[in-house]
Amino acid sequence: MGKAAIIGVGQSKFGKRSDASLRELAFEAYTQAIDDAGIDPTTIDASLVCSATHYDKQRSPAGVVAEYLRLNPQPTFNVEAACASSAVGLRTAWALVTSKLHNTIAVIGVQKMTELSNDEIQELMGRAGDVMWESPFGTTMPAYYAMYASAHMARYKTTEEDMAHVTVKNRTYGAKNPNAMFQKPVTVEEVLKSRMVSAPLKLFDCCANADGAACLIVSPAEKAKKAEKPVWIAGLGLASSPMSLAGRKGPLTSFEVTKNAAKSAYEMAKVGPKDVDVAEVHDSFSITELLNYEDLGFAEPGKGASLLKSHETELGGKIPVNVDGGLLSKGHPVGATGASQLVTLVKQLRGEAGALQVDNAKIGLAQNIGGIGMYAAVSLLRA
Amino acid sequence: MGKAAIIGVGQSKFGKRSDASLRELAFEAYTQAIDDAGIDPTTIDASLVCSATHYDKQRSPAGVVAEYLRLNPQPTFNVEAACASSAVGLRTAWALVTSKLHNTIAVIGVQKMTELSNDEIQELMGRAGDVMWESPFGTTMPAYYAMYASAHMARYKTTEEDMAHVTVKNRTYGAKNPNAMFQKPVTVEEVLKSRMVSAPLKLFDCCANADGAACLIVSPAEKAKKAEKPVWIAGLGLASSPMSLAGRKGPLTSFEVTKNAAKSAYEMAKVGPKDVDVAEVHDSFSITELLNYEDLGFAEPGKGASLLKSHETELGGKIPVNVDGGLLSKGHPVGATGASQLVTLVKQLRGEAGALQVDNAKIGLAQNIGGIGMYAAVSLLRA
Repeated sequence: MGKAAIIGVGQSKFGKRSDASLRELAFEAYTQAIDDAGIDPTTIDASLVCSATHYDKQRSPAGVVAEYLRLNPQPTFNVEAACASSAVGLRTAWALVTSKLHNTIAVIGVQKMTELSNDEIQELMGRAGDVMWESPFGTTMPAYYAMYASAHMARYKTTEEDMAHVTVKNRTYGAKNPNAMFQKPVTVEEVLKSRMVSAPLKLFDCCANADGAACLIVSPAEKAKKAEKPVWIAGLGLASSPMSLAGRKGPLTSFEVTKNAAKSAYEMAKVGPKDVDVAEVHDSFSITELLNYEDLGFAEPGKGASLLKSHETELGGKIPVNVDGGLLSKGHPVGATGASQLVTLVKQLRGEAGALQVDNAKIGLAQNIGGIGMYAAVSLLRA
Repeated sequence: MGKAAIIGVGQSKFGKRSDASLRELAFEAYTQAIDDAGIDPTTIDASLVCSATHYDKQRSPAGVVAEYLRLNPQPTFNVEAACASSAVGLRTAWALVTSKLHNTIAVIGVQKMTELSNDEIQELMGRAGDVMWESPFGTTMPAYYAMYASAHMARYKTTEEDMAHVTVKNRTYGAKNPNAMFQKPVTVEEVLKSRMVSAPLKLFDCCANADGAACLIVSPAEKAKKAEKPVWIAGLGLASSPMSLAGRKGPLTSFEVTKNAAKSAYEMAKVGPKDVDVAEVHDSFSITELLNYEDLGFAEPGKGASLLKSHETELGGKIPVNVDGGLLSKGHPVGATGASQLVTLVKQLRGEAGALQVDNAKIGLAQNIGGIGMYAAVSLLRA
């Protein structure tokens, strides 16, 4: 197998970005990444636009993004795996550069969600579930994850307060991330008193739809070795699971799909969960972060909340998680989220994370669940 | 660079498939491809679902397709480049297998368009153009291509009758393709008298929205050499162009994007247009086929209609084009079209095309234009 690295990163501010169109969001992230890599933009020989295109007014966004970023006539296309889109973009870019089709790829995760109404977004989110047997019966995203939360509470005595602590931790860090949508810490009481969305998940247990973009510049080893500050792609895991809940085995207390993606990534990188110094995991809902601790091997099954309460997933702990604020603070512009996690890891592994720096971080892990768990991607980066 | 081949192909019937859901269309194509390859389906280690997902009621279709085809827990994701989606799927699969991430990939082009109303489809098609500066002013797909037709007529004296002959040729072959949506030949008079859609393009100058699926099984050289009937992937070209017409140079009499994609593909395969024995080109509209002759190097600029009238693009001619009926006969289920062209080429190169067989075909070319020309893909296959 070949080797490849991320040689530059950039990210726009996430949130309700009435000031910027889809193409402008992409531009913000892309120009930062080019500057960060210190390369001539004419050396970019392909772009991958990662977006769950149905949430944008603009369809087939690779066309307009490549035009606006002056990336014509180089190849471009859209990669989509719901919330895991830009993690899959990284994996696809890895294959395109190590197979020698390309030498420098811009992976651009972008989503402009707030042009559609909330009702439209809810409808479309539901349609990322099974439209024949499930979404017509009301399974919106919060409803799906609420079932996982209820099952975990029933089996492992996880409490609403445990989940609230995830939000509290992440919002504490989000307050120090200038790109985050929400920059105000919250208390456990505020989370518990926020309005019910889908029991037991309340408003502050849920990440917010957002506009945003993030960009990664990917090159193969030969070129990356000459780059100023390459961060190496050590492991890339991707797995799928039945889209329908009915198609899944066992109680809804873990995501088999994350376990499978993690296994592939750990094997490729020849490391295990104990080797990870800093992690960005998919906290689409507070419960998701607790499940991810367990599915990624950071905690035993059912012990996610104990790990959280031990403070080991905070700065200074054994495995700091979502110290950029996570989706719960940053907002969740679907296509941009995976790339945003990787931007954070690259900065951590270079020691450039400022107030949020994890000491001596050498190995970073990013994980996304796509949709209601039909995809999961796990990426391992190495300083 | 590594080598890879298509070792199995399958295709559903195209058309208004009220009898089959998206997942069932994918199943039809996939099971045929598995049987054709003669492989155990458990050896498929990834699937790529190629679809312009906004035309389907189901969003993020890779999730439901992988579940229905029992391809979990293997990696899957969606690849989208408008009408070039599954050609890009082939190129992506090539990179994934030659980079050694995977060994046997199912590339599944699928689209279930007829669940949305015609008005919805028209609106969404327009949004695959620039939603800020062009589509709000009425540039639907026929309108875009009508501008190219008018420019070509003005500059090269191409006539409406010339264009009608494209439809006549393709519908003649479509009548012999059991998978085609339209299986009735038409006359030049019928085309010219069909109702105006966007002047000078009339109804029979336009391909039809359709439901359908096509599947390619792709493996690297080591595995393909052991396959019964591999067809080798010789060249893969992909290029982009500004999405907006305003962003393009020169008169609208050719697609620079096709020329760029063709150049890459010819270079990779080390062949030229004269070496091509059989071609499948993107006849989204009759005019498109004529432009493609010129942009692919089969005819000099402005001489597309002359080539057509010389009968050289018919069976028995120097370079038979769209002898499976093309999009004008088969219908155009956006995500499936590229793979369908490749299914046809594979059968031609194996000598299995029956009544539509091109004698002694050794090199085949498939070409798609994505959307209004922001993408083009050219694939070269070798027997």
